[in-house]
Amino acid sequence: MMRVGVYFTPYQVDEFALRDQTVVVIDVLRAGTTIATALANGAKEIIPVTTVERAVKISGSLFGDHILRGGERNGKMIKGFDLGNSPLDYSEGKVKGKAIIFSSTNGSKAIDKGRYAREMVLCSFVNLLAVVRFLETLRKDFHVVCSGNNGSFSMEDSVCAGMLLQKLSEQKGIELFLSDEALAAVALYTSFGRSTAKMVRNSEHGRYLEQIGFGADLDICSSVNMLDVIPQLVGSVIKLKTGPERVEAKMVPVPTQ
Amino acid sequence: MMRVGVYFTPYQVDEFALRDQTVVVIDVLRAGTTIATALANGAKEIIPVTTVERAVKISGSLFGDHILRGGERNGKMIKGFDLGNSPLDYSEGKVKGKAIIFSSTNGSKAIDKGRYAREMVLCSFVNLLAVVRFLETLRKDFHVVCSGNNGSFSMEDSVCAGMLLQKLSEQKGIELFLSDEALAAVALYTSFGRSTAKMVRNSEHGRYLEQIGFGADLDICSSVNMLDVIPQLVGSVIKLKTGPERVEAKMVPVPTQ
Repeated sequence: MMRVGVYFTPYQVDEFALRDQTVVVIDVLRAGTTIATALANGAKEIIPVTTVERAVKISGSLFGDHILRGGERNGKMIKGFDLGNSPLDYSEGKVKGKAIIFSSTNGSKAIDKGRYAREMVLCSFVNLLAVVRFLETLRKDFHVVCSGNNGSFSMEDSVCAGMLLQKLSEQKGIELFLSDEALAAVALYTSFGRSTAKMVRNSEHGRYLEQIGFGADLDICSSVNMLDVIPQLVGSVIKLKTGPERVEAKMVPVPTQ
Repeated sequence: MMRVGVYFTPYQVDEFALRDQTVVVIDVLRAGTTIATALANGAKEIIPVTTVERAVKISGSLFGDHILRGGERNGKMIKGFDLGNSPLDYSEGKVKGKAIIFSSTNGSKAIDKGRYAREMVLCSFVNLLAVVRFLETLRKDFHVVCSGNNGSFSMEDSVCAGMLLQKLSEQKGIELFLSDEALAAVALYTSFGRSTAKMVRNSEHGRYLEQIGFGADLDICSSVNMLDVIPQLVGSVIKLKTGPERVEAKMVPVPTQ
């Protein structure tokens, strides 16, 4: 029996409550998707920071052309940065072999909440099955922290959390004990998850991104099981997860209608 | 078109975001139910306070036997108080004509968040239709703040919020524009609201109250549309709502199976 807690926003959860726990951070729009894409395209590591000031400070003390700065504030690229927060910015040609200092409005805060976790991985629709396989092998209690949207509930992260739990519960021999909030997440997946593309496009955050010109990102961010990668926080950087618990996930793209 | 925002926990919302707004505070287990019961049984007013210290201080400066102290911490009666937080404590014989200084773990915090609201009313399953009628007559944007359970999401408050919005949306000429979180609340009502009794009994908070001996309260708190009252914050006290927007609600008890 695995006990599962879900938090719809990072502000509800205290970082000490996550100390020594297994934590899955969800950020569909867009940091979770973008970081998975960057690592799948060969980026060496992602250095998550909560503030733009810190990103500038850290990158100022490093040098060489193997360092990039990426991220956004309110969806838009940060002045002086090399990359925004669109997965389309993180092509193999741009990121292969690079370390990327990264700061985003929502995802970076959720990642920061998991800083005392025993193990923290990033999940979004694009790498959902890979995270299911990891949790299935792990067989331990875990917490899911949704990044949300500017401190508020976001439909896309909550539905993604529910899909993760639903798919995990369907694995052989897995029994989950769900908190109220985890149960709610699964119900939201049942209600809205049949078409992730439609749900993401109709969400508050999706509508905002469409408005400011990132409509193409919504299709990418709502694609299920496209990347067989697990971004994992190791010390203070995010790298591809490797090791004994990293089981090869057989990717079965789910039709998103 | 009425715009509706929902907050699953009071901690997500800033009191200034609710300034001059219409706010519905939901607390099914148990303050919302208990306060509605007390006012329906003739209590003169409820004085909500966030801390036990403040309850003691205020009641110390008042005197006479028309003042009672009620409430709970972690579900249990507070030492030296006259009443707990069970609706069963607030019979007509005990509360008629009395002012009640009241402090509870969750509800008092949510009420406090609405202190700058233009208008704040309390909703729970027992008086849901009365609040629907009020909002139907008001025809203004409003926010729903769920009290939650110790700072966390609670299923019973979220489902109650969803039921409120669903029933309101079914009224003639009403069109609601729902936030992501409001949409999620309605979906949770659709998933879990068919039997409020079962849902409340299976919720984390419900299971805890059952464990500490308040199982009988769960049946009362999951009864729909039993009381035709709207508790409203007026200045710093909660009274029965009166006035032009107070339309007589025809109570139609919903079977709870």
